[in-house]
Amino acid sequence: MTSKTIIEKLNNIVGAKNCWTDPAELALYSFDSSVEKPAMPEVVVRPENTEQVAAVCKICNDHDIPLITRGAGTNLAGGTIPVTGGCVLLMTGLNRILEINTEDMYAVVQAGAITADIAAAVSAKGLFYPPDPGSQKMSTIGGNVAENAGGLRGLKYGVTKDYVMGVTFCDMAGNIVKGGGKTVKLCTGYNLTGLMCQSEGTLGVMTEFILKLVPPPKASKAMLVSFADIMEAGRTVSGIITNHVLPCTLELMDNFTIKTVHAATGADLPTDAAALLLIEVDGHPAQVEDDYQTVLKVCRENNGEVRVAETAEEKEKLWEGRRKSLSSLARLRPTLVLEDATVPRSRIPDMLLALEEIRQKHNVTIGTFGHAGDGNLHPTILCDKRDAEEMARVHQAVDAIFAAALAMDGTCSGEHGIGIAKVKYMVDEVGEGTINYMKQLKKGVDPKNLLNPTKMGL
Amino acid sequence: MTSKTIIEKLNNIVGAKNCWTDPAELALYSFDSSVEKPAMPEVVVRPENTEQVAAVCKICNDHDIPLITRGAGTNLAGGTIPVTGGCVLLMTGLNRILEINTEDMYAVVQAGAITADIAAAVSAKGLFYPPDPGSQKMSTIGGNVAENAGGLRGLKYGVTKDYVMGVTFCDMAGNIVKGGGKTVKLCTGYNLTGLMCQSEGTLGVMTEFILKLVPPPKASKAMLVSFADIMEAGRTVSGIITNHVLPCTLELMDNFTIKTVHAATGADLPTDAAALLLIEVDGHPAQVEDDYQTVLKVCRENNGEVRVAETAEEKEKLWEGRRKSLSSLARLRPTLVLEDATVPRSRIPDMLLALEEIRQKHNVTIGTFGHAGDGNLHPTILCDKRDAEEMARVHQAVDAIFAAALAMDGTCSGEHGIGIAKVKYMVDEVGEGTINYMKQLKKGVDPKNLLNPTKMGL
Repeated sequence: MTSKTIIEKLNNIVGAKNCWTDPAELALYSFDSSVEKPAMPEVVVRPENTEQVAAVCKICNDHDIPLITRGAGTNLAGGTIPVTGGCVLLMTGLNRILEINTEDMYAVVQAGAITADIAAAVSAKGLFYPPDPGSQKMSTIGGNVAENAGGLRGLKYGVTKDYVMGVTFCDMAGNIVKGGGKTVKLCTGYNLTGLMCQSEGTLGVMTEFILKLVPPPKASKAMLVSFADIMEAGRTVSGIITNHVLPCTLELMDNFTIKTVHAATGADLPTDAAALLLIEVDGHPAQVEDDYQTVLKVCRENNGEVRVAETAEEKEKLWEGRRKSLSSLARLRPTLVLEDATVPRSRIPDMLLALEEIRQKHNVTIGTFGHAGDGNLHPTILCDKRDAEEMARVHQAVDAIFAAALAMDGTCSGEHGIGIAKVKYMVDEVGEGTINYMKQLKKGVDPKNLLNPTKMGL
Repeated sequence: MTSKTIIEKLNNIVGAKNCWTDPAELALYSFDSSVEKPAMPEVVVRPENTEQVAAVCKICNDHDIPLITRGAGTNLAGGTIPVTGGCVLLMTGLNRILEINTEDMYAVVQAGAITADIAAAVSAKGLFYPPDPGSQKMSTIGGNVAENAGGLRGLKYGVTKDYVMGVTFCDMAGNIVKGGGKTVKLCTGYNLTGLMCQSEGTLGVMTEFILKLVPPPKASKAMLVSFADIMEAGRTVSGIITNHVLPCTLELMDNFTIKTVHAATGADLPTDAAALLLIEVDGHPAQVEDDYQTVLKVCRENNGEVRVAETAEEKEKLWEGRRKSLSSLARLRPTLVLEDATVPRSRIPDMLLALEEIRQKHNVTIGTFGHAGDGNLHPTILCDKRDAEEMARVHQAVDAIFAAALAMDGTCSGEHGIGIAKVKYMVDEVGEGTINYMKQLKKGVDPKNLLNPTKMGL
């Protein structure tokens, strides 16, 4: 329990304007973008620098207060919900872009900076920060790192962890810890940068990052390919990559999603198509042309009908439909269960087949879209959480989706993390030995289990 | 102390043919490729599968026996020397390439497989495993991962950790732990794959990896550029990258190294050059041509004289000189102290200046070569370890090299790891908070500190 004395101590660290205990304020930090049950924190603090973060950690550690770090709260697996009460540490006060170094191609940013702002600032300097999670206009880079966020460019460019060269974080005792650095090669001590990526706020509070930047591609070409048979779309995905083309984006939308987006946004999509692929290749202009020809060949072999975006405007329009998939689906029913089961990409046709079987067997409404090139689909179940009978079927469907993915050497989380939502699937995937090892690691650095407790089952 | 009973237990696990206690045999595993002091193990075992590894771990844990995992013993920082005795676990019995999947572009390999063998098998299937540490013809993939080995292609393609998608390892209690998997995106639980990379045998015994493969480049072009002033070579490195060209290799040799290699091997090198850059660009043929033109322009602006390898044979010859740098230098004096201080690449000219000052001040012989594009130089001090007075100067020079690198936001280890050799420099680089955090992590999973004790100061 967080006593008045402790709140006073926290208040002294961050200042009255950055410390809240009013229930109306606390309620704002009781939920995130997942469908998990909200839970109230006892206090919310908003530090403005690493030293204040360290001091907050120490106070919480000394007084056994759970500490839940929060960025923009866009988490889809319940990762930022304060399940056991305690203190929410809001990172939005550390939101500065400290350096963009064009010679050595890195950026130094604070954890609360918005990802899209970083990408824009980097772009203005003639460089490129590739990771582009769907939430990028709102989510913070700290949240992206904690969840190892993916996005549309994962296939060719990798995900967030592939761009974190260095990290500064506070451990629960209030010590400042550094991993990695500004050099392309670095082998000094444990790869703490790697460990902190995907740690979901359970191993420390990250305050600053050194991000890798790359030269931007010189050209790109985008196309929309429609298929009368979704299996042919699946085989096209695999065929493109087997032909050694790595598109920067390779997205899929099923008929249900196509129709929904078309109705909701008026986007000019072929509503009679069983599936669409949205494909973009980038790089040197000559490579783009070669890759385009290869993609064209593979699409036609699989009976795909190709429409190329000839102008930047057309390209923008093409992508708009994909970007609005989730929000369009969300309008249909009160509750949306968004999953991110992921399989090796050659198994995409099998996964599409499995999803159709699951839809029929459990009588649920599923719209599927996602990063097909990564094997990372987002089957999205539309339902109403007030309807217990329907939700029972939804939960069975979700169980079946994960069982199918694991049977195909896949994973229960491609890019959304475990949080609260996927704990029960994780054991099936990684085994007891792995869970035990994770627990031991956490116990070593957070013996009282105060850092985002219960998340990932820890 | 390893009693007869314990040795009998180990013998029962791996079989008599894979268990050694004879002093002559033990001596073979008392040293590695570093100049660190040898130390005898008490027993050497050579398991042949993951289950045997797990059983060995459990026996050692139950009986408080230090456990030192060893691949090919090419470590340059003393990482595989059994400082406190105990059991050396030789990984050469797990040396199989289990799968090369061309559709999903990954390989599954056992930890004792030789890196060059893996690269060759992958190449035969039309794919590419980029990491190419200097030791690749001898070293095992397990050693590469444990040290996060680099190589010549780091600048464009990254290092070992960028290619490990999944890992299986045994913890000290004998549990089998799995991290990562076969999907491009994966966010399930801690990023144990990232953590195990660069952990130097201190967190578990790795037995199997899933390695990421990529399509091979379609074309390449190599050139040798000679400079009358080493500072101009340094500025060329930075200039190439600022012009958004990422060569697949960008290597430097100073005049001392050039002359030594020329004398030792008869390689056709310009012995009057102050420095050479060996530059190779690769990718789509049109991109290679564009990049070549840009590199040419930057080299000429910095008064470099460019010789292009027109045939595969000429290219091979060009690289041979670079590859023989270390062995050629090694012939000059009895002892060779090879360092891998690394700086952000724009600081390469400053680092070259610092190395010249250090050479003069401490009156030592330094040959410098290395991966200039990564900021990863290998200043190599030639000396005689029997000469105490000379070695005192050598140690002062090494201290000065690391101090210079750290002052330039660099690191004391770019690709060789910490082992025993660099423990004292690590604290200066990462700080006490970080060392403490590393110790806590290790204590969590190896409370008796039996896994490669003393390494990285742990």
